[in-house]
Parts: sequence; structure tokens; C-alpha cells
Amino acid sequence: MEEKEISQAVIGRLPRYFRYLGELKDEGVERISSQDLSELMKVTASQIRQDFNNFGGFGQQGYGYNVEYLYKEIGKILGLDVQHNFIIVGAGNLGRALGNYTNFERRGFYFRGMFDQDPELVGRKVRNVQVRPMEEMEEFIGDNEIDMAVLAIPKAGAVPVAERLSRTSIRAIWNFAHVDLNLPERIQVENVHLSDSLMRLSYNIDRYRKEQEGS
Amino acid sequence: MEEKEISQAVIGRLPRYFRYLGELKDEGVERISSQDLSELMKVTASQIRQDFNNFGGFGQQGYGYNVEYLYKEIGKILGLDVQHNFIIVGAGNLGRALGNYTNFERRGFYFRGMFDQDPELVGRKVRNVQVRPMEEMEEFIGDNEIDMAVLAIPKAGAVPVAERLSRTSIRAIWNFAHVDLNLPERIQVENVHLSDSLMRLSYNIDRYRKEQEGS
Repeated sequence: MEEKEISQAVIGRLPRYFRYLGELKDEGVERISSQDLSELMKVTASQIRQDFNNFGGFGQQGYGYNVEYLYKEIGKILGLDVQHNFIIVGAGNLGRALGNYTNFERRGFYFRGMFDQDPELVGRKVRNVQVRPMEEMEEFIGDNEIDMAVLAIPKAGAVPVAERLSRTSIRAIWNFAHVDLNLPERIQVENVHLSDSLMRLSYNIDRYRKEQEGS
Repeated sequence: MEEKEISQAVIGRLPRYFRYLGELKDEGVERISSQDLSELMKVTASQIRQDFNNFGGFGQQGYGYNVEYLYKEIGKILGLDVQHNFIIVGAGNLGRALGNYTNFERRGFYFRGMFDQDPELVGRKVRNVQVRPMEEMEEFIGDNEIDMAVLAIPKAGAVPVAERLSRTSIRAIWNFAHVDLNLPERIQVENVHLSDSLMRLSYNIDRYRKEQEGS
């Protein structure tokens, strides 16, 4: 696999391909043509062929793509065949929602620990994981080969917690706090800024209304 | 405002500008140069100047940008000065997390109703909003000038609920269900596909590891 040469634009589209191929596989579909996949995903067939050519094709003319093979190969490119252990920092509604999110395991991410500064929440359980006090975080990370942390805490607490995490073996942060984190390059950060998403929606509602009014 | 001419790429960056300007405003900062904003946001100063030129500049040479003015103008472009009423479908952990998310009001979105098919959840309260049964959804939307719905339900239920919503006055769906919705053009859809985000993170962890190993 020469995945290093794949552009970020293509990489950005892989999760969606993976999702659709996973659904096709679950439905028992064995092969699919780029035309059929194009209709399903509302992407042009030529885009699909170009994207898949980036990692060696996997398709045969007039025969279509082997769904399971393609699903597995894209999974490997996305690193989903590697196991990760993660903790969630923040046991509020969002943290609990994420702890209950079973798609994690399907993607190779195993929920091992949960931390909160609120003594009221310490000791509670989310699935089989007990909420621990923040003071135990570093030791837990070291003892349990944790390599990813989910930040589900308010903005104000996120920066100091991220700094604490950056002094551990953590290699990745999935950040739901409403702030951009500036961390060493070796720590991968993926932001889910819900407010930014809500603003894009707001813009699109407004734009559509203005178009209809012809203003 | 000739916002129709602004490219989607610039629009995509506006929420982040808005967020940083809001923080500066809250901190009492009145003016900021493109250089200082550049350092803060890790974006080039020339990118900032180009982006802001799209909607008439708002800056003066050697004087910097007026933070509050810029904040308000970007807010208007994003439609944040318009009030929206929304419901949340799904009163599980994610739905409750979103119901408790107070940034909504700051963006002009008012939480009015919550629905779930689980009788155990009906009648519970999230902030001041009581969970209602799904059968009451359409009538509630009509009676309360609801124009946005948040979908915080599993994939399987999302498509039929979205179809029910598309027969109401709803103009926008903020979709957290793990499925792409195909709805009439008049309904704006913003997807938050957490699994896609997790896969991007997985890819970046794997890529960084391979780079370090020099493979």
C-alpha cells in the first residue's frame, strides 16, 4: 500500500466510502459497479473510479468492485485494523453519550476509562466503565496502554487537560470542547466543533430563504 | 451585503473567525491587526485579509479590524441575527447533551420541544422542555413555528423520521444519525457523522506512526 501518496481530499472521502461499503456488505451485496455506487452515494462514477485508482483500483472492467475486499482495504488504509484503547474525560451528558456509542469497537477503539472532576459523578458507571477522579488520569493512562482521549468537557477545562494529556503516552485527542488545541505534532487532534456546524446550518437556512425571496 | 458571491470555502471558514472574534470581544479586545489574528488562529495574515475583503473589508491600513463590528457583520452573514425554533428528536444521552447545550441560544436557536418513542422517557424534562411522544411531533411543529429539527436517534429510525419532518414546515435538519438523508432541496441538512470523524483520527494516528517508523 502506498497510502502516503493519497491526497488529503481522497482521505477525507474514505470514511464515507467505508460507511456505504459496510452497509452493502451487511446487506449481503458482493459486487457493485461504480455506476450503482455513484447513484447510491450521489458522487459521480468518475470520481469514484479516480478515488479508488489511488490505492490500486480493486475493480475490474464490466465486473464491478468486490464489496468485502474494498471494505477491508479501505479499513486498512484508515488504520481500522489497529486496536486503540481510549478514555473519555468528562462524564456529563455528552461524555456518557460517547461512552455508549458502540460504533467505537467496530472501528478498533476500546473504551477503557472515564474521568470527571465532579465527585458526584465519580463512581458511576457508563457501560462497564466506572467514572474516576481526574487525579488518577495519568496513572491510569500509563497502566492501561491508553493511546487516545476523548475530551467531552467545557472549553475552560479543555486546554489544561490537553496539556496534562500531552505529557502522557496519549497519541490522539478527539476534541469536543469548543476550543482549538495547540499540541505537539506527535499528538493527532480531531475536532468536533458543534457550534461551527450549527453556524454552517444557520448560514444555509438564511441563504436559501434569500434566494427564494430573490433578494 | 453581497454574500451570494462569497465562495463556499470562505463560508466554511467564517464560523471559526466568528468564534475567535467572539472570544476577543468577551476579553474586551477592541481592535486586532490581521497579523495578531493570524498568530492566534494559525492562519496566514494574507488569508485573513483576502477572506475579509470578500465582504467589504472592515479593516483599515495600520489600524486593524474593529472586533465588535467584524463579529456582528460575520454574525449577520451567517444568519445568526435570525431567530429559529427547534425540536430535538431522540431523548437519549446525545439528545439530552444537545438539549443542555447553551450555545444554541447565542446562535439564535431556541430549544422548544423534545420527542422520543420510548414511553419511559416521555414526560422527563431536559432544561425546561418536557419529552413528548413521537405521535405529537407534527402538530407541535405546526403550533410552535418550529423550523429546525435535531436528529439524535439511531440510523434505522432517522430516515422515516426525516420523511415525516419533510412533510412539515421544517426548513433544516441537524443530523447526528449515522446516515445520509436525501430530502427536498428546500430542507437544509447539516450532518455530524461522528464515525467519519473517528475514522479520520484513526487514519492520522496510523499515518504518523508509519512516518515515524519510516515505512
